[in-house]
Amino acid sequence: MGMNILAAHGGGPTAVINTSLQGLVEAARESGKVDKIYAARFGAEGILKGDLIDLTDVPADTIRKLSHTPASAIGSCRRRLGDADYPKVLETLKKFQIDAFFYNGGNDSMDTCHKVNELALREGLDLRVIGIPKTMDNDLEITDHCPGFGSAARYAALSAAELALDASSLPIHVVVLELMGRGAGWVTAAGAMAKRLTCCEQLVYLPELPVDEDKMLADIERLYAKGRGLLVTVSEGILRPDGTAFADTGIVDGFGHVVPGGTAQYISDQIMAKLGIKSRAEKPGLLGRASIPYASVVDRQEAYAVGRQAVLSALCGESGQMVAIKAERSPKYSSSLFLTPLEKVANAEKKFPLEWIVDGSQIADEFFAYAGPLMGEDFPEYAHLR
Amino acid sequence: MGMNILAAHGGGPTAVINTSLQGLVEAARESGKVDKIYAARFGAEGILKGDLIDLTDVPADTIRKLSHTPASAIGSCRRRLGDADYPKVLETLKKFQIDAFFYNGGNDSMDTCHKVNELALREGLDLRVIGIPKTMDNDLEITDHCPGFGSAARYAALSAAELALDASSLPIHVVVLELMGRGAGWVTAAGAMAKRLTCCEQLVYLPELPVDEDKMLADIERLYAKGRGLLVTVSEGILRPDGTAFADTGIVDGFGHVVPGGTAQYISDQIMAKLGIKSRAEKPGLLGRASIPYASVVDRQEAYAVGRQAVLSALCGESGQMVAIKAERSPKYSSSLFLTPLEKVANAEKKFPLEWIVDGSQIADEFFAYAGPLMGEDFPEYAHLR
Repeated sequence: MGMNILAAHGGGPTAVINTSLQGLVEAARESGKVDKIYAARFGAEGILKGDLIDLTDVPADTIRKLSHTPASAIGSCRRRLGDADYPKVLETLKKFQIDAFFYNGGNDSMDTCHKVNELALREGLDLRVIGIPKTMDNDLEITDHCPGFGSAARYAALSAAELALDASSLPIHVVVLELMGRGAGWVTAAGAMAKRLTCCEQLVYLPELPVDEDKMLADIERLYAKGRGLLVTVSEGILRPDGTAFADTGIVDGFGHVVPGGTAQYISDQIMAKLGIKSRAEKPGLLGRASIPYASVVDRQEAYAVGRQAVLSALCGESGQMVAIKAERSPKYSSSLFLTPLEKVANAEKKFPLEWIVDGSQIADEFFAYAGPLMGEDFPEYAHLR
Repeated sequence: MGMNILAAHGGGPTAVINTSLQGLVEAARESGKVDKIYAARFGAEGILKGDLIDLTDVPADTIRKLSHTPASAIGSCRRRLGDADYPKVLETLKKFQIDAFFYNGGNDSMDTCHKVNELALREGLDLRVIGIPKTMDNDLEITDHCPGFGSAARYAALSAAELALDASSLPIHVVVLELMGRGAGWVTAAGAMAKRLTCCEQLVYLPELPVDEDKMLADIERLYAKGRGLLVTVSEGILRPDGTAFADTGIVDGFGHVVPGGTAQYISDQIMAKLGIKSRAEKPGLLGRASIPYASVVDRQEAYAVGRQAVLSALCGESGQMVAIKAERSPKYSSSLFLTPLEKVANAEKKFPLEWIVDGSQIADEFFAYAGPLMGEDFPEYAHLR
């Protein structure tokens, strides 16, 4: 008799999280050792309610479509499990006679994964638990990088370059581009590719360093005056030296916190009001993690591989581990997979190296040596005739 | 002795305006009848200043890169020529001994084109003037559609679908997507593709019909309650029944007008404040006209063809005409080109048919029968497993 397995998604989706699910399902089928393949409908919510989707007989052709389906095809959630929830998790696992559980997510999800594993061990349940990494923010530790990041970075890099070309071809304005990553600048840093692919001037602001508005506006005025166009790229989460946000929605959420938002629009408004320069703010937002045409081929291949490896590892009897990526960048890029204990990645956070931020508003080449191969190496050469 | 020709771009660029330039340059070279190929640096500004770029000897490989270079590789401008400017235009044309002038733009540019032609006729100048259509807004008359629209529409359609998948895979919020087209709903209507490609609920608001905020919020609340996710797609230019904008930047421009902006963010804020539903606003803005990965293959082919045809027409002695597109949609899509007098397209505006707006917030299938083939027909089939 084969195993019954359960896959679940946690947190915000990426362009390639479904590709990891594809790798998982296809590896399970090919192994001949899996009876039932379940997925939790809307992540932890589905596990708590015992609301599972039976993927066992879903046609292979539908599973293949996962490779170009953004977001989560089985649903995800932002719910973080509390101590009181774990008995319910166990109940669902027992009810469906689950032998292996795969949780695909970021460090929060790896913490959940770790706790499920500990609980199963304490209760003497024969359960294998494997984490599958996913986060566009790239903030998971141990793994060289995280599936989902390469695609989000490629989106940021190409979108910034395209906007820079637009801004410099009608040299009457500044464009401010807001990118995702409230606490980590990994994706916004990728936007610095614009200066490398075009002749447009660029300023880049990450959330890792405080941003002084007067200094920023002075730099904008100076670079705008060069007449080559100017793209200002900001993380949605940049803060002032006093730790406050540049802008908020004025809306108070259920926890009593003011909902942040509108950083780029605020800066654009200041450019018009204080510098008298026409400006536009753009905010592709969630498109940066949902875009399939901008997704990185390397990222998709690795996302597939980690999903596949998770199943193969569980079949080999591994448990309490996350699949991680080891990368070689020289002489050319290649990657391999290894397992790392869940407790080492649970709640740890990979920080953006501050030394890669130059003069507060430029990104060092070291970042692109690291992240370039993850974005795919086929960046366009644009025609510039002016 | 061959001809000297001058190409110029007018107004906002599109994803394929450079492809029209590629078609123009390649046709000129292949003809063997063109001596000098000039381009105006930054459109009308360059013509007025006599600031031309000599493209005659630009390598063929660089010209080929125009097909995947967004924005304007020669520069464009928003300056509308006044009566006092035309003598200067004539001066530049004479100075560089231009025999044929090609202006690539929307209805404003076709008006300029028409006036240059009239002036040349009055002055007895042997000049051929041909307009090349371009506008993401699709508001040019006579031509079935306009190069640039298919790509902007494809961007709107795919982006909306990707956001809808994201919104429905974490069913805790509404996403409001703002699309370009202040006065015309052609591009925003294409965003209605999301409902056709996904299971997400969708509301679509074009600038052609006034939008009542209370009715909109009631519809949002009703569709959100279905639990399948909700994408609200709005044109940046939607207006209330009293003719006012939903939001503005609070900034007064040089003409004393308040700069509009922030429609989607405003609506998103109301959803949170009045309905208590978590909401996000996204605004890809200029990315919608600058994205190469989302560009339509059909649009690119037609953009190339109109640039090419402009040169061939001038070489045949035509003048005072714009290249226009005739399309057949049945049994399958095909298009051909014809010439139409500039005066018929100058300043005319193609209106979005009001009968294609259903119940104020849905788009009729007739729109997609018209626009679908222009966006390219290879829309993805997504995997849906929930």
